[in-house]
Amino acid sequence: MKVLGVDPGLTRCGVGVVDGVAGRPLTMAGVGVVRTPADADIAHRLVLIERGIEEWLDEQRPDCVAVERVFSQHNVRTVMGTAQASAVAMLCAARRGLPVALHTPSEVKAAVTGSGRADKAQVGAMVTRLLRLDAPPKPADAADALALAICHIWRAPAVNRLQQAHAANRLQQAQAAARARPAPVRRTPARAPGPRPGTPQKGTTR
Amino acid sequence: MKVLGVDPGLTRCGVGVVDGVAGRPLTMAGVGVVRTPADADIAHRLVLIERGIEEWLDEQRPDCVAVERVFSQHNVRTVMGTAQASAVAMLCAARRGLPVALHTPSEVKAAVTGSGRADKAQVGAMVTRLLRLDAPPKPADAADALALAICHIWRAPAVNRLQQAHAANRLQQAQAAARARPAPVRRTPARAPGPRPGTPQKGTTR
Repeated sequence: MKVLGVDPGLTRCGVGVVDGVAGRPLTMAGVGVVRTPADADIAHRLVLIERGIEEWLDEQRPDCVAVERVFSQHNVRTVMGTAQASAVAMLCAARRGLPVALHTPSEVKAAVTGSGRADKAQVGAMVTRLLRLDAPPKPADAADALALAICHIWRAPAVNRLQQAHAANRLQQAQAAARARPAPVRRTPARAPGPRPGTPQKGTTR
Repeated sequence: MKVLGVDPGLTRCGVGVVDGVAGRPLTMAGVGVVRTPADADIAHRLVLIERGIEEWLDEQRPDCVAVERVFSQHNVRTVMGTAQASAVAMLCAARRGLPVALHTPSEVKAAVTGSGRADKAQVGAMVTRLLRLDAPPKPADAADALALAICHIWRAPAVNRLQQAHAANRLQQAQAAARARPAPVRRTPARAPGPRPGTPQKGTTR
């Protein structure tokens, strides 16, 4: 499994790609930062983030995207920008049909260091060790993005895949409902469009 | 000037289009709501919002998009979703080269009712009167989106245009800098790409 981790931010959006499966040594496929100028307006910064993330997705072709879940505990201005950058990352991934997973900062820290309250240096040290790098990736946003990808590979992949299949089903149903809305009222129930090939189905006997 | 106003939200994203100039009677060109199912995951909801906004932009071809500026004073969970929905609206507009303006809820209320603390009913009543509608648009998100568009038309359009020209210049400069980054160091300053035709320039004598 190849996972692209995104540590969202308007000024620096960390991106790290990790290849591997739980229980085996992991490999770093790429790491970097998408930057936008602090003096540009917010709408243009979001366009630059979209382009940056799209380039990473085109180049790396990950199986899934893991994004840090944003909370509002910090500075309000920063959190808004972080939430907006994370929205662009999620949008880019979901638009391609890639599963999107969200992990909290403490889940990520606990996954790679064993403690949900580890500091940046500890996270950087463990990312360096787990991916057998020569030095901790810099800036910290890049190391955090790699930690997110590692966390995602290690956290119950089977559970995640099941959730994503359900989410895809719900999306299809919502889209079918939206398409059906302008049609006249039917007396007999319309045949719903079938699920995608390979989607788990309930109650099929053949 | 045709302005598409967006009152961002994950569950209901109000959209209202107003045509006109300050000092003349205004016309409503369209109003509605982009909805996403509350049980879908956030990434898919953002994709549905993007599709909805794109449809409005394709159909209405506005000159500019006005989005409500999101603050963190309310419920944290709601605000995150609102910030993310607003990011998608700004992205869709800026990607097409449309100017994006942000107005706070109190600026909008003050513009249409004369008071920054007016309630929803008062905003709805004034939108109905100003656009000569038969009844207040429902839901309130739709009326708020129209109020945003009216507010934008009335708030110093000349100032906004100047800001947007500057923002476009800054974006061009940032893109030129990003393209130039891998190139070797130059001894003589490179000729910067010229501004777009019609962009105000400082210090030109011819």
